[in-house]
Amino acid sequence: MTGSTLWRNARLATLDPAQGGDGWGLVEHGALLTEGNRIAWVGTIHDLPAQAAPDQEVDLGGALVTPGLVDCHTHLVYGGHRAAEFEQRLQGMSYEAIARAGGGIRSSVAATRAASEDHLLASAAQRAEGLMAEGVTTLEIKSGYGLSLEAEARCLRVARRLGAELPLDVRTTFLGAHTLPPEFEGRADDYIDAICTWLPELQAQGLVDAVDAFCEHIGFTREQTRRVFEAAQCLGLPVKLHAEQLSDQGGAALAASFGALSCDHLEHLSPEGIAAMRAAGTVAVLLPGAYHTLRETRLPPIEALRSAGVPMAVATDHNPGTSPGLSLLLMASMACTLFRLTPLEAVQGITMNAARALGLPDRGQLAAGQRADFVAWRLGHPNELAYWFGHNPCQRVVSNGCERSNPWA
Amino acid sequence: MTGSTLWRNARLATLDPAQGGDGWGLVEHGALLTEGNRIAWVGTIHDLPAQAAPDQEVDLGGALVTPGLVDCHTHLVYGGHRAAEFEQRLQGMSYEAIARAGGGIRSSVAATRAASEDHLLASAAQRAEGLMAEGVTTLEIKSGYGLSLEAEARCLRVARRLGAELPLDVRTTFLGAHTLPPEFEGRADDYIDAICTWLPELQAQGLVDAVDAFCEHIGFTREQTRRVFEAAQCLGLPVKLHAEQLSDQGGAALAASFGALSCDHLEHLSPEGIAAMRAAGTVAVLLPGAYHTLRETRLPPIEALRSAGVPMAVATDHNPGTSPGLSLLLMASMACTLFRLTPLEAVQGITMNAARALGLPDRGQLAAGQRADFVAWRLGHPNELAYWFGHNPCQRVVSNGCERSNPWA
Ligand SMILES: [Zn+2]
Ligand SMILES: [Zn+2]
Repeated sequence: MTGSTLWRNARLATLDPAQGGDGWGLVEHGALLTEGNRIAWVGTIHDLPAQAAPDQEVDLGGALVTPGLVDCHTHLVYGGHRAAEFEQRLQGMSYEAIARAGGGIRSSVAATRAASEDHLLASAAQRAEGLMAEGVTTLEIKSGYGLSLEAEARCLRVARRLGAELPLDVRTTFLGAHTLPPEFEGRADDYIDAICTWLPELQAQGLVDAVDAFCEHIGFTREQTRRVFEAAQCLGLPVKLHAEQLSDQGGAALAASFGALSCDHLEHLSPEGIAAMRAAGTVAVLLPGAYHTLRETRLPPIEALRSAGVPMAVATDHNPGTSPGLSLLLMASMACTLFRLTPLEAVQGITMNAARALGLPDRGQLAAGQRADFVAWRLGHPNELAYWFGHNPCQRVVSNGCERSNPWA
Repeated sequence: MTGSTLWRNARLATLDPAQGGDGWGLVEHGALLTEGNRIAWVGTIHDLPAQAAPDQEVDLGGALVTPGLVDCHTHLVYGGHRAAEFEQRLQGMSYEAIARAGGGIRSSVAATRAASEDHLLASAAQRAEGLMAEGVTTLEIKSGYGLSLEAEARCLRVARRLGAELPLDVRTTFLGAHTLPPEFEGRADDYIDAICTWLPELQAQGLVDAVDAFCEHIGFTREQTRRVFEAAQCLGLPVKLHAEQLSDQGGAALAASFGALSCDHLEHLSPEGIAAMRAAGTVAVLLPGAYHTLRETRLPPIEALRSAGVPMAVATDHNPGTSPGLSLLLMASMACTLFRLTPLEAVQGITMNAARALGLPDRGQLAAGQRADFVAWRLGHPNELAYWFGHNPCQRVVSNGCERSNPWA
């Protein structure tokens, strides 16, 4: 990460409007100069400043190069999985019967509480490696399967350890308000009180980058969500929200009134919610993996978001119940096929707009000053990232200025 | 491929009813004895015959082992791709405008005709390697983008070369009746005449394992399909059919009357078609990737196929237009999520029933006498193959008795 490197012989999809009018910001005969973990210069090789004296040069063999991918919404850390429940449901067992048998989200909570920190780390690391193999260089991880101070802290520590042990930048989000733990049955307001007392402790331990909640008729009310957000605001923590997934709760407008980084899901988002998000600069995070897995038919209001100029991101929402998917490229493809995003919007959605949904203006484009996170692909044009699906054309990955060695590249 | 090997320390999902009542045929503490390219014995290690004296032993580290995967319906060999068209459509360009600009299937025909055999081989090999990385050991490849004797022969030769050059068994299907080439515009019957004269030549060159057609209002009529099948029958070649994808053409019943190996797609299959397929022992090949890409809403009649006892297979239908997907595991997952197959049905669909759709009774289960094609997975239970998606848990692959070396395992 020290010294400067010239990465040459690439076709760059910079996503930098300064580089070209079509949004892709394509640069032929492109090169990147990195200094340590930052990009110092981007352009065609012919324009390389004469005074540039890189310590080393790397030939990218004519590959297509994009910014590193950013998965801005995951629930990657949990105990167990729910494959048996998936099978039971398809064999005809009802949701009620599965819940009575201890299934559903509460089975993930029980398995997470029972799992050691090392066990949680090992299983999440395997999943993170799946995402990294496709060029993910920044990963958001939410808590929300612990639901006690101790277990939430354990999950957030695992997320931090993943960031420290893997060549990957991890951002943590506290999602205590994910579902009501059994010991608070019938006492949701008391649980919200508890969460609000945990938050300063977790923050003091350096475990929280943002705060999220599940505002839904099967989650928490708008008033409960507001209390969580007020606690976050007191601590100077940015907020995000699982909003209007199954019904319009007015959650997006509430989140926007707190200057939320993002509202996520949004199938039932109202025009008022869109207006509030636009005014607040809140990113719309689209989660086609959950839409697909739940066989939803109501689409998020893409055309209205597009006309309003609300930035759209796309994420895996990886979780063991409603989105056991581990491919951010597949989500980009599904965002096109199912939600009718253009390939450019889908690729912006897993790079620059995903970075914005995490409050990280230093990544998501190839431009001077950005973090040196980029990916070389066995592809001719970046629209192919959203066209092929179930395919990993990732060739090499540079994360924070360092090239990842196999098995992650 | 000579000598005998004991593959031990595995959990086997044999899919052999003789091994267990639940369909998975699970064997704990399992082992496989291979002699050359055949499985000689399968069971728990404790039951290994005393006289077994393997030349070598391989410890599978407790992995889950299934039969090698069979992708029984692909259009893998073609020139170019259609990512730009995919982008144009999402930018709002109409199908008509795209067709006028030379897009659609005819652009793939033009690109295929223009491509050299080596170029076709290189691009198809890259795609085949994507499938192989997930444990595919048998792959069907259809012609149908050449549409002249010379170009169809070239594509089928490429398919044969893939089978010879990669550790993979390739089965070829002649699909001259895929679409009408421009030089036969308005003369579909003449084109069918031409195809019927090509078929003996292609067979004489050893290029054809089966014959297929696209029976649809935008493809060929039932009468035209019948003529193709009669030509196949004269040569002793088995038939398959793209049937009832967009409308009920009565194609399945026609195909069944020729003892078809499979009818594929089947969203509009009638009860009469199901009865005919059952009587003929024809496999129903389900193609959720095309259903997904085309955003279809009409489901194939799964429950009726299941009650009738028609075997169901699942395939990628990989093609540059309606299914640019390259993951057979994703198709298994989509078959569950979109079509409501059980995980067992989905896994049978990409192994034993897919083999049956190719007329290959020697593979698709782990049992004595079967071809030594199997895959070791980083998974605990085979239902996880359909649960996780966009994820490749493939650890090692044995194809025809030989373990593939990286990068294919
Ligand atoms: Zn979520
Ligand atoms: Zn097809």
